[in-house]
Amino acid sequence: MNVPKSENISRVQLQVTRAQREGALGQRGVTVWFTGLSASGKSTIATRVDQLLTERGRHCYVLDGDNIRFGLNRDLGFSPEDRNENIRRIGEVAKLFGDAGTISLSSFISPYKGDRDEVRALHEAANLKFVEVFVDCPLATAEERDPKGLYKKARAGEIKNFTGIDDPYEAPENPEIHLRTDQMSLEDEVALVIEYLLEHDIIREKYLTRESDKDQDASAAA
Amino acid sequence: MNVPKSENISRVQLQVTRAQREGALGQRGVTVWFTGLSASGKSTIATRVDQLLTERGRHCYVLDGDNIRFGLNRDLGFSPEDRNENIRRIGEVAKLFGDAGTISLSSFISPYKGDRDEVRALHEAANLKFVEVFVDCPLATAEERDPKGLYKKARAGEIKNFTGIDDPYEAPENPEIHLRTDQMSLEDEVALVIEYLLEHDIIREKYLTRESDKDQDASAAA
Repeated sequence: MNVPKSENISRVQLQVTRAQREGALGQRGVTVWFTGLSASGKSTIATRVDQLLTERGRHCYVLDGDNIRFGLNRDLGFSPEDRNENIRRIGEVAKLFGDAGTISLSSFISPYKGDRDEVRALHEAANLKFVEVFVDCPLATAEERDPKGLYKKARAGEIKNFTGIDDPYEAPENPEIHLRTDQMSLEDEVALVIEYLLEHDIIREKYLTRESDKDQDASAAA
Repeated sequence: MNVPKSENISRVQLQVTRAQREGALGQRGVTVWFTGLSASGKSTIATRVDQLLTERGRHCYVLDGDNIRFGLNRDLGFSPEDRNENIRRIGEVAKLFGDAGTISLSSFISPYKGDRDEVRALHEAANLKFVEVFVDCPLATAEERDPKGLYKKARAGEIKNFTGIDDPYEAPENPEIHLRTDQMSLEDEVALVIEYLLEHDIIREKYLTRESDKDQDASAAA
């Protein structure tokens, strides 16, 4: 058995602090919140950041429609009230992940400024970093991409309350990161997010070294 | 910058798998679900398991009234419907943590068997391990402990729908772990939980070694 035979075990509750969890993970907890129109590129960027950081041993998790809309929020639709409750719950879950020391990457249209600001306030009250990433492209570009044919259906009136068509998208005024996906490469978008995390001490460069990088470094130095 | 200058970056979404997250953490994701009467000892045990594992570099998180009732579930009361929705949401959140590779320790009375079985089914459908821990002691013992004076208030009719008094507690029939907190020491209770995690390959002995253990091992071997 690995339980220490310490004399100090008592009914006193010693709560593990966030700093201790972060220490065990070698990173700081954070919520990176990607917001933007459908087909703006949110999930593509979040997934790529997740992949790069996980490969380097960081602990991340992506919150998106796939694991939220069919689970925690399966009782919610797309009315304004339900959209608000949808984002409220996601914000609360992201906060729990951040408190656990995880880098959570939330990828939701989250069109209403008020809802996003509530999530930000929730994080600030818990002394947790909230990084709003505005994944920005013109509506025309998103509509041209239309990978799931949703804009087409919305224009045809088959989907109601579709953001950008008959429901507003309220752009962030002061996002921590602003990406113009119609003008930038995916590499550059991902690089800006990771640079931000490095600059704000969420991750540290020294943790980002893996064997293949070391080999490259060695070659570069040679 | 630490973004690789690979030619392979494309718009193809490469999802990080649960196994990759677990690999980065050196453990497997799991939900350890503590159920039992108020004052049965759930949080004391969960907190101690959390503390021991975190000290050894494992990644855990405790879901309990403190971080759920005042956050995600602040819109819910104690009616049967609200209790059901309370447990449903906690189950969904625990599942997300498990999917992220985290050892989540849920500490809620969760008095209804049907609600707990739903959470179990949710995990099984996601191929995630669910460990039900029945934190068991006679009502009389819990009532005698009564650290927050809640039983006293319930007996006086000041709190309604209090589990064990005027709301039923449906005991688990086949819990993975059954702890009799009126008969066991905290050390033994915690040891049984950690042994279970070791035996089921959630954590591995080799990850549980820290410097002070090594010194002890060396002394023991000498």
